[in-house]
Amino acid sequence: MSATSPSLPIEANRFLIVGGASLVGSASAEVLLAEGAAEVTVLDSFYQGSAENLEHLRSDARLRLIEGDVMRLPQLIEAAKGMDGVLHLAALMSISMDRDPWTGLDVNLRGTQNVIEACCVTGVKKLVFTSSSAVYGYGPGLAGNLIETTPFLTYGAPPGAIIYGASKVIGEQLCRDAFAKRGLNYVAVRYSTVYGERQHYRATNALYIIETHDRVRQGRRPRVIGDGSDTKHFVHVSDAARANAAAFAAAATNVAVNISGPRPTTTLEIVRLVTELAGQDLAPEHVEPEPGKVQLSAGGAWSMDHGLAERILGWRPQVDMREGIRRLIAWREATGR
Amino acid sequence: MSATSPSLPIEANRFLIVGGASLVGSASAEVLLAEGAAEVTVLDSFYQGSAENLEHLRSDARLRLIEGDVMRLPQLIEAAKGMDGVLHLAALMSISMDRDPWTGLDVNLRGTQNVIEACCVTGVKKLVFTSSSAVYGYGPGLAGNLIETTPFLTYGAPPGAIIYGASKVIGEQLCRDAFAKRGLNYVAVRYSTVYGERQHYRATNALYIIETHDRVRQGRRPRVIGDGSDTKHFVHVSDAARANAAAFAAAATNVAVNISGPRPTTTLEIVRLVTELAGQDLAPEHVEPEPGKVQLSAGGAWSMDHGLAERILGWRPQVDMREGIRRLIAWREATGR
Repeated sequence: MSATSPSLPIEANRFLIVGGASLVGSASAEVLLAEGAAEVTVLDSFYQGSAENLEHLRSDARLRLIEGDVMRLPQLIEAAKGMDGVLHLAALMSISMDRDPWTGLDVNLRGTQNVIEACCVTGVKKLVFTSSSAVYGYGPGLAGNLIETTPFLTYGAPPGAIIYGASKVIGEQLCRDAFAKRGLNYVAVRYSTVYGERQHYRATNALYIIETHDRVRQGRRPRVIGDGSDTKHFVHVSDAARANAAAFAAAATNVAVNISGPRPTTTLEIVRLVTELAGQDLAPEHVEPEPGKVQLSAGGAWSMDHGLAERILGWRPQVDMREGIRRLIAWREATGR
Repeated sequence: MSATSPSLPIEANRFLIVGGASLVGSASAEVLLAEGAAEVTVLDSFYQGSAENLEHLRSDARLRLIEGDVMRLPQLIEAAKGMDGVLHLAALMSISMDRDPWTGLDVNLRGTQNVIEACCVTGVKKLVFTSSSAVYGYGPGLAGNLIETTPFLTYGAPPGAIIYGASKVIGEQLCRDAFAKRGLNYVAVRYSTVYGERQHYRATNALYIIETHDRVRQGRRPRVIGDGSDTKHFVHVSDAARANAAAFAAAATNVAVNISGPRPTTTLEIVRLVTELAGQDLAPEHVEPEPGKVQLSAGGAWSMDHGLAERILGWRPQVDMREGIRRLIAWREATGR
């Protein structure tokens, strides 16, 4: 393989995960180690992440955890030296962006510029940049099967959500710019809402799962906003992690690709499934949206198509919602989280 | 008028124009002074602007020009003290963003955050934020009549253009956020391509006018890219300036509104009109797009609807392309620029 081949096998190569002490980072480290990586270094500022998220991997000597800030370019350059691939996960999402757009734009934009710069100056062979379904926007008008050329609905959703989506649009374009001008191979993976083991409370849509579980395990009735017909599309964290590995290994480059679960669902179905899998028999309570809380709703049914990922990454999701929620609940029960 | 009324009359009020030593800034200062403003202070870093652009207004004692940088919040706060309205123009556009996205994102995002912060801490009554038709994107798929809810085509155009458009999407949302959380009245004006007296070379689409004029006044045949059927929509700088004043004076707030000229045109029509108004009889030469140059093309015919501006700002464009190009050429001949 030449240094400029867009394919980067996992086996015997070294990987840096920026913002990796996280939901997606911990699962990605696990997959990269399982697929034979020579080293996986996780860099995290612990602003959102936590070392606890990597506990399950600590016996693997190939894993290294270093404290570092995506805003500090010299730290990134130091960490990227000798690495073959970089997975860039560090970002603030809609809720955090709503609370603090000043920090959010710094992390999502300057942070990404710093990661790209570090990749270019140290000769990293491939970058996987994590984008989001947020690049399609939210709100009335989002309908049908979203493919990679679908435009961005910038009207109607809360400012934090649109700023988050636009920050991911810009991040992808910074990658395109680096590919064109500096030859940096990259794949941008646009995840739908990720959920699973080591779930946190920062993702607007994943709250439907974890907040429901919080209530029902206390024996309280789960809440559904409105009639619960609102469409959501999730992807289990293990599938997202496999997609990241596939994005390194595939010959694909200079492309953004959707990563989503087997099929979309509704908020009512999620609430029912979580209640059932938690072993409870509690009827959902229909409530009004909470004022001041960032909530994202589309006008009609929609889904996020992952056909391109099947074709160019050879990836498809394996974990359906029932299995994914079962694993999430099992993890919470086992860890007391 | 209460301090929180969204209407800010021009007469007897004080205005700060950030990034005002520019095409749009100079024309806006002229309109604000003509409509009876008590003071117009122009702040500019002269990174792109020039004091020469305000020469025609220097005899007016109400005009003040200060050097200052949109990246330096303390300078903005100092300049905003005692001001009633702020017009925020400082930005890098597609060509500059392509050349230097690092600086472009700083100016367009942190710069806008700084302007908003300065408005909020000094009690400015209304902000007019200049956005762009770039929030609708470019490229195949842009068609029909673009209204304010039209989504953003983020696929296919050059990175610099998409980053520019996304930076304006974010700027608008930062304004929405400041309105919601801090009560800052604002109007975001989405200009189509501005052209006219004191034209510069930084706007991709306005180059069709000024580069054609550069060639034909040297007796060289004008160039048209492809068959010249590509749609463009311009707005004369005097109309954009009147729209800015109308955005202050109107009761409208917390809204983004299209500002465009009487009707769209094609690149071939522009080239023919410039050639004719320059008094030349030169047949256009059809050429291929220049590699490496940021060029923006839509798939089909499109226009930018300004019906909302008519309804909520009481504004409509007055200068058609023939009159606007006549004025631009007259200005170049009079000033030797």
